[in-house]
Amino acid sequence: MGTVVKGYAAHSSDTPLVPFTFNRRDLREDDVEIDILYCGICHTDIHHVRSDWGKEEYPMVPEHEIIGRVTKVGGKVTRFKLGQTVGVGCLVDSCRECFSCNHHQEQYCDNFVPTYASKDRHDGSPTYGGYSEKIIVSQNFVLHIPENLDLASSAPLLCAGITVFSPLRRWNVTSGKKVAVIGLGGLGHMGIKIAKAMGAEVTLFSRSKGKEDDAYALGADNVVISTSESQMRSVRGTFDLIIDTIPYNHDVNPYINALAPDGALVLVGYFGALEPRVETVPLIARGKSLTGSLIGGLAETQEMLDFCGANNVVADIELIDIQEINGAFERLLKSDVKYRFVIDMQSLK
Amino acid sequence: MGTVVKGYAAHSSDTPLVPFTFNRRDLREDDVEIDILYCGICHTDIHHVRSDWGKEEYPMVPEHEIIGRVTKVGGKVTRFKLGQTVGVGCLVDSCRECFSCNHHQEQYCDNFVPTYASKDRHDGSPTYGGYSEKIIVSQNFVLHIPENLDLASSAPLLCAGITVFSPLRRWNVTSGKKVAVIGLGGLGHMGIKIAKAMGAEVTLFSRSKGKEDDAYALGADNVVISTSESQMRSVRGTFDLIIDTIPYNHDVNPYINALAPDGALVLVGYFGALEPRVETVPLIARGKSLTGSLIGGLAETQEMLDFCGANNVVADIELIDIQEINGAFERLLKSDVKYRFVIDMQSLK
Repeated sequence: MGTVVKGYAAHSSDTPLVPFTFNRRDLREDDVEIDILYCGICHTDIHHVRSDWGKEEYPMVPEHEIIGRVTKVGGKVTRFKLGQTVGVGCLVDSCRECFSCNHHQEQYCDNFVPTYASKDRHDGSPTYGGYSEKIIVSQNFVLHIPENLDLASSAPLLCAGITVFSPLRRWNVTSGKKVAVIGLGGLGHMGIKIAKAMGAEVTLFSRSKGKEDDAYALGADNVVISTSESQMRSVRGTFDLIIDTIPYNHDVNPYINALAPDGALVLVGYFGALEPRVETVPLIARGKSLTGSLIGGLAETQEMLDFCGANNVVADIELIDIQEINGAFERLLKSDVKYRFVIDMQSLK
Repeated sequence: MGTVVKGYAAHSSDTPLVPFTFNRRDLREDDVEIDILYCGICHTDIHHVRSDWGKEEYPMVPEHEIIGRVTKVGGKVTRFKLGQTVGVGCLVDSCRECFSCNHHQEQYCDNFVPTYASKDRHDGSPTYGGYSEKIIVSQNFVLHIPENLDLASSAPLLCAGITVFSPLRRWNVTSGKKVAVIGLGGLGHMGIKIAKAMGAEVTLFSRSKGKEDDAYALGADNVVISTSESQMRSVRGTFDLIIDTIPYNHDVNPYINALAPDGALVLVGYFGALEPRVETVPLIARGKSLTGSLIGGLAETQEMLDFCGANNVVADIELIDIQEINGAFERLLKSDVKYRFVIDMQSLK
C-alpha cells in the first residue's frame, strides 16, 4: 500500500546520492500529506550520509528543512487545510508523554523521531526526509509558514533559523542587548539576521578578514577578528550572549572572556570534548555560563516562523536542482555557499 | 587619629595568627561603626593568609562573616540607628557607577573592595576584616539582621549563605524543583537548608557513605554516593540545579549528566581549569549549562537574610574563642567541623 514517490537517496556512506523510488505510508487519521516545494541542505545531511556520527541504515533520504503544500489530510486533522503552505523541521514525532513533551520541548524527548535516518514510532519503518516529492507527517509536527515570506528562502528557517532563535529567546535577547555570533555559515548568517531583528547590537567573530562587507550587509554592527589578540582584548566583558556555530573543537575560553557578567556562550555546532581545558574563574567570578542548544520545540519553531514573518526575515540562499546535490555537498564542505543551498523540488518531477 | 582596636592578624603566609592592635579610620559621613559580636571562619581566610591565590600584604586581619551592633553612625547615615544588629559580608565598597553596581551586582564590579586583604578606595589604607573588636563600613555595605535569628549562627549567612542563595534564586528554584548539592561543608550544608526552605526536593552528592544521617537531619531528601556508578546512573537527567561546592579540580561531566534538560551545574568552589575535558553533547543536546556564581550583590544578600529570617534558617556552627583560631584553621583544612566555626568576639576583650 502507500504512495510511491520519487526522491534522492544515499545507498552507502561513500557513494553519491542517486534517484530513488520508495513508498510513503498511507495517511493516518492525524497525518498531513505535503507536496514538497523546497528543501534545504544542512551540514547534518552530510554527517548522516557519511556515517560520521555512527552506524547508519541505507538507503537514506536526508533533509529536514522542508517547505511544501498540503495535498491531503487525515480524518482527525484540525490544524491544516488543503492548499496551505507548511513546513517540516528536524522532528516528525516524539513520545508525547514525557516531561519534555509536556513542556513543549519535544527536542529533548528521549524518544523523539528525527525527520530522516530514524524509525517511525508505530510501524518501525525508516523515516525518509525532504529529498523527495512528498512527505507524510502528523499534524502536531507540521508548521504554518507566514504568507509574506519567500518560500524557497524560508526552508532554512526550519533548522538553521530555529537553532539560533531558540537560544536568543531563552537568554532574553531584546533591544539593547549585545549579541555576538561566531562563524558566518548557514547558522551564523541566520543568527545575525534574527538577533538584529530582535533589536540587539550584533557582532560577528570571524577568524580572518574579508567578511566585513557581507556581515554588515546581513545586519551586523561590528566584526571582530578572533585571531587578533588586540581585538579580542578590546571586547573583553562585552557580550550578553554569544552563539558559537563553530563545528569543530576550538578554545572557548577567549569567547567566555568576551562575555559580560551573567552572559552565556551557547554552543550549537561542536559535539565533542573541549580542548584546551575550560577555565572556571570567569564562570564563578562573573556568573558566566557555558551552555548549548539544540534546534527548538514545535511551539517555539512556530513562534520563530511567526517572528520571521512579522520581521520579514529569511535566509540568503542559492537555489539549485536536485541533480546538483552531490556537487553541493562538496561545496558545503568547503563553506562555499552564501549561505544555504535550497533545492527547487520541481527539478525532481 | 582613628580608633585603636584589638584584633588577630597574620604577619606572614607561614606563621600563626597572633594578637594585633591597629587603627580603624575616623567615621566618614556615611559610615557605620560596628561592635563585632560574632565572626565566622571561611576557607577563604586560610587561602588569603597562606597566599594561595598570589602575593598578599601583611599584617592581614581576615574575615567577612561579621555580625555586630551599631555603636556610632556618620552624619549622613539614614539606614541604621545605634544599637541595631547588623551584618557585613564579603564587600565593603565598590565603584558605585558601573553597569554591575547600577544593577545591584556589586560583586561583579571590577573595582569592588573586599572586606579584608584589599585597599580602601579613598585613602588606600588596608582593609581589615572581622577578627577584630570593631569595623567601620559605609552604610551601603551594611546589612540588617532579622531579629528572630540566633546571632552567632547567622554569621555564616554573610558568605556561605549568600553564595548558595544567589544561584538558587537566579535559576528559579521553587517548590517542586529538584536540587542537588555536591559536598557537605560550610557551603553545602547551607545549600541543603536554603534549597529545602525554598521548597525544593534536595539531594546530597557525597563521595563516601556515612553522611546520610547528617544530611537528612539538615533537610536532604536523598543522598547519592558519587563514586557509585549505579547510583550515578540512577539519577541521570534528574536535577534542575546542582550546586558544586568542591574546592579542588574534579570531573564535572558525571554531574552534568545528572542534570535534567535545561538544568545548570553551578560551580562555587573550584577556581582553575577543568580536567578531564568538558563534553559538549549534554550541553547542546539537552540545553544544559555549566556555570558559576560568586557570593551575591548587597540587595540580594539582604533578600537572603530576610528569607532566612522568615524561614528560620541559620548555619550549624561550632562556637570558639579567638585564641583557638590557629587550631580551627587546621581542623577546617581537614573538614573537621559541623559545619562552620564562629568566633565569639567577647573572647577578644
